[in-house]
Amino acid sequence: MTTSTLMLNAHPRTTDLDREALGDVIDSLLACAEACTACADACLGEPDVAELTRCVRLNLDCADVCCVTARVLSRQTDYDPRLSLNLLQVCLVACQTCGDECAHHAGHHAHCRLCAEACRDCEDACREFVAMLLGAASG
Amino acid sequence: MTTSTLMLNAHPRTTDLDREALGDVIDSLLACAEACTACADACLGEPDVAELTRCVRLNLDCADVCCVTARVLSRQTDYDPRLSLNLLQVCLVACQTCGDECAHHAGHHAHCRLCAEACRDCEDACREFVAMLLGAASG
Amino acid sequence: MTTSTLMLNAHPRTTDLDREALGDVIDSLLACAEACTACADACLGEPDVAELTRCVRLNLDCADVCCVTARVLSRQTDYDPRLSLNLLQVCLVACQTCGDECAHHAGHHAHCRLCAEACRDCEDACREFVAMLLGAASG
Amino acid sequence: MTTSTLMLNAHPRTTDLDREALGDVIDSLLACAEACTACADACLGEPDVAELTRCVRLNLDCADVCCVTARVLSRQTDYDPRLSLNLLQVCLVACQTCGDECAHHAGHHAHCRLCAEACRDCEDACREFVAMLLGAASG
Repeated sequence: MTTSTLMLNAHPRTTDLDREALGDVIDSLLACAEACTACADACLGEPDVAELTRCVRLNLDCADVCCVTARVLSRQTDYDPRLSLNLLQVCLVACQTCGDECAHHAGHHAHCRLCAEACRDCEDACREFVAMLLGAASG
Repeated sequence: MTTSTLMLNAHPRTTDLDREALGDVIDSLLACAEACTACADACLGEPDVAELTRCVRLNLDCADVCCVTARVLSRQTDYDPRLSLNLLQVCLVACQTCGDECAHHAGHHAHCRLCAEACRDCEDACREFVAMLLGAASG
Repeated sequence: MTTSTLMLNAHPRTTDLDREALGDVIDSLLACAEACTACADACLGEPDVAELTRCVRLNLDCADVCCVTARVLSRQTDYDPRLSLNLLQVCLVACQTCGDECAHHAGHHAHCRLCAEACRDCEDACREFVAMLLGAASG
Repeated sequence: MTTSTLMLNAHPRTTDLDREALGDVIDSLLACAEACTACADACLGEPDVAELTRCVRLNLDCADVCCVTARVLSRQTDYDPRLSLNLLQVCLVACQTCGDECAHHAGHHAHCRLCAEACRDCEDACREFVAMLLGAASG
């Protein structure tokens, strides 16, 4: 079990949320933030950096948005489902946009290929968790 | 002119955005992030902290979301109107929720009163900028 | 192999640093940041929150410092050994201070026990990496 | 009076620190973080981005370190002079290194000139505040 799930299980407040699913989406967000931070930097180190400036910019946005989404989701005291849901929906778009751009460079740069995979994983994790939250709200 | 507007004016890419209005919303976001970070800490220093835990939690969320929204809006290279718009809409909700909670404690704690004002200012600034972006998109 | 090590291995610039060791310290930093963010929030949800305000404050500092140290260490383009070294030394102190405080509450709160462990692990990882950097500089 | 000083004045805990001086250094840190975030992005938008990759990298580091230093300094509950002092000393180095690099490009790019100024201001503000903290400790 990862740090995020262990910490969620140790939280004093009871919750209707599936804590293991929540821990998994937090882990995907942290991995994607790390991949995007490193990919932005690796792009800066490439001889063809001029072809990669859109990739760097989207990496920086995606890293920032994933990092903050992970922080907000990690807070369970007076949990606000609306903010979590809205942030996850924004994050999903950031991951999709960044993942698409990284995928364009995946054939030339291994860091872009790996980052595209992290973005796709995170996009999927956010989408599934949004569906779970919306299902819980309507169920 | 503030640092954010000066920097936007020095950016190499041309833009259809009103750079002074963009600088103003970034300044409101940074001021709100600072107010929320300080209010969370001031609440922790109050004898009645147990009454203020929801306030602390929302302060932390609002500080994080405002800070990241300011970062993303400060980036003009390969500007993505969708991410900016979505983030501003999430940020508006975070400011509204946090401002409402701080307003409940404004009579007892000056830091909550000041933070509620910063949240309202930022909420208004985000709403106006969202309207400007949507007007530009449809105009 | 984790995301951070995979990304370091895909970086275009050659380095004298041990990339697996660097990946490990980044992972410890990210795990500690997550534990501290969650512990701050869990403390806010405890009935005895008034006894835990120092813990919350130090958790917030430690989460912020670990997160930024991980970001800086993840950047290998035009790597600046001085900033990395200095940040690791500050981070080590933040982890030590926060870990000591969490350890005081470990008997009462599982989240403080787990967070104390994450702080100790991260403190050790930072200390070992600092020693490696200083050894490399003098070797 | 700026948001940071207003909030420090509203804090419930008494302090030996000069709150106006503390508010000023926080404002310098926030302005420098904003300048560096915007300068990194403006560099990415320049035709000669390949000459500016070291500048982008140092901008990103400096923005991250200034942002976190501002957050830690904004917290006055159970204030830890050692962490504040150490962080300010690291931040000073980050501002100096980034300001030197930006100054190299100041003749060609207005954003680098403005960012170099923000880095110098922040470096000076950190140095003065460190001297004040060390004086207070020895006085």
